[in-house]
Amino acid sequence: MPQQIGLIGLGQMGRAMASNLLAAGFGLRVYNRTAARAQPLVEKGATPAREPHDVATAGGVVLSVVADDRAVEEVATDKLLQALGPGGVHVSMSTILPATSEKLADRHAHFGVTYVAAPVFGRPEAAAARRLWVCTSGPSEAKQRARPVFDAIGQGVFDFGEAPGAANVVKLAGNFLLTAAIECMAEACAMGEKNGVPREALLGFFTQTLFDCPIYNNYARRLVDADYGNVGFALPLALKDMALAQQTATAGRVPMPVLSLLRDRFVASLAKGRGNLDAAAVALEAAEDAGISWFK
Amino acid sequence: MPQQIGLIGLGQMGRAMASNLLAAGFGLRVYNRTAARAQPLVEKGATPAREPHDVATAGGVVLSVVADDRAVEEVATDKLLQALGPGGVHVSMSTILPATSEKLADRHAHFGVTYVAAPVFGRPEAAAARRLWVCTSGPSEAKQRARPVFDAIGQGVFDFGEAPGAANVVKLAGNFLLTAAIECMAEACAMGEKNGVPREALLGFFTQTLFDCPIYNNYARRLVDADYGNVGFALPLALKDMALAQQTATAGRVPMPVLSLLRDRFVASLAKGRGNLDAAAVALEAAEDAGISWFK
Repeated sequence: MPQQIGLIGLGQMGRAMASNLLAAGFGLRVYNRTAARAQPLVEKGATPAREPHDVATAGGVVLSVVADDRAVEEVATDKLLQALGPGGVHVSMSTILPATSEKLADRHAHFGVTYVAAPVFGRPEAAAARRLWVCTSGPSEAKQRARPVFDAIGQGVFDFGEAPGAANVVKLAGNFLLTAAIECMAEACAMGEKNGVPREALLGFFTQTLFDCPIYNNYARRLVDADYGNVGFALPLALKDMALAQQTATAGRVPMPVLSLLRDRFVASLAKGRGNLDAAAVALEAAEDAGISWFK
Repeated sequence: MPQQIGLIGLGQMGRAMASNLLAAGFGLRVYNRTAARAQPLVEKGATPAREPHDVATAGGVVLSVVADDRAVEEVATDKLLQALGPGGVHVSMSTILPATSEKLADRHAHFGVTYVAAPVFGRPEAAAARRLWVCTSGPSEAKQRARPVFDAIGQGVFDFGEAPGAANVVKLAGNFLLTAAIECMAEACAMGEKNGVPREALLGFFTQTLFDCPIYNNYARRLVDADYGNVGFALPLALKDMALAQQTATAGRVPMPVLSLLRDRFVASLAKGRGNLDAAAVALEAAEDAGISWFK
């Protein structure tokens, strides 16, 4: 009999993971606030649930992949934790504050449920291709139990120990590093273009040599093609992540000047009505400040 | 008979290139302000020159690899350009302003000499291992003529067209991108360490996944090991390059907020007496601002 697990949250990431879990042979109960999103997965064998706690089985495993801290707290209801009960595991894959993971881990413990933070890196295409990177933190036994789930959705797991929020710190650091890479490429390209070097030539060189890695390659392609409408990482979510990173940095007493600058770049992007674009569109700010437009 | 070329400047980079040129069979005349530096190369077959122009042969090729704009202008004397004369080529490999290359190209033309900008990427170890990346700009024929030289010192050549300063723009953009990567890693590590994630774990993950490329790998290793004394790219030279990038950005009317921030980081590093360290030591600023020290 296949292992039965629950999944809460069927956004772009959740849907891609769900398909891979079904393909790997997991029995899957799925919940999404907008129920219609479950339909394509139901056709592949998933069971739809009417409430978050309906995805849980006693002592079982439930994954959640939702938009923000508030959404995780809203789905991790007392009812859900009661339904999971002693021996149950909640694998929380959303990008949230480390402090929220710590708070949730405590609340879960009251119900005998183990909380595991397991945020992932990778755009929806990577999720569909089972090429996510999974960062984990929390009690070892629960992480081992969830391992087949991680193997079904990703290409590798990196563990950051037992502290509930450690993996969330890594996820926020990563989203900072990747948006910082976009800003830096944009500044370099603006300098290049105003001095006679097209951004295609500039980034073509760097991504074949010193910066030949997924983040630079992916975002260089978007900058060169001015491809901002194809949303994999929505711009408002990137701003949310910058705010979470700032909160975490402030809590730890860490000034992060590049992060502060990025936050303002994203606020400017929203002010200009770019909330429907990919986070890569933050690159347009550096260009516009230099009096040029890369927007098609 | 081997092709005879001249080389001006025997710093860490120049010496490594000279050895590879000798190994590739070039006849080499070398000049350095501090003449003693030529000795090990003379033992390998190079001919020492007493003045910069003594490295030139009529219609031949001369390379220069010196510290800054002023040093290039000081070695590209009228005597040197007269000695090279019509058909001669000066391959200028230093990290200098695009505007200086434009000015020099004009002055060279008066003597019938072609000026080629060919700054390189790679630390002295990469130079020794013939693994430099060479960026070129200038007239095509002269670049073709210098091609065997580039092949003897590097692993690849990227061309940026005929404008004299284009390759210098790329070099400044690259040094900006690489120092920005150090700053961003340092900010992320400071946030990580103050929130329970050691920098070794954080950077270990990123350099195996999203940022698996030479710049992140090299500088992550230095940050993790607190290895700042082993100087490959001297901190004062990095500040010089930030200043050149700022000048170029200002000339092109390009605000670059991350670059401005980096310039201040390097100034702070010098203020703290770190002028004898590698540019990677700029990472110490973000840590110290957060009340922690990575310095051994």
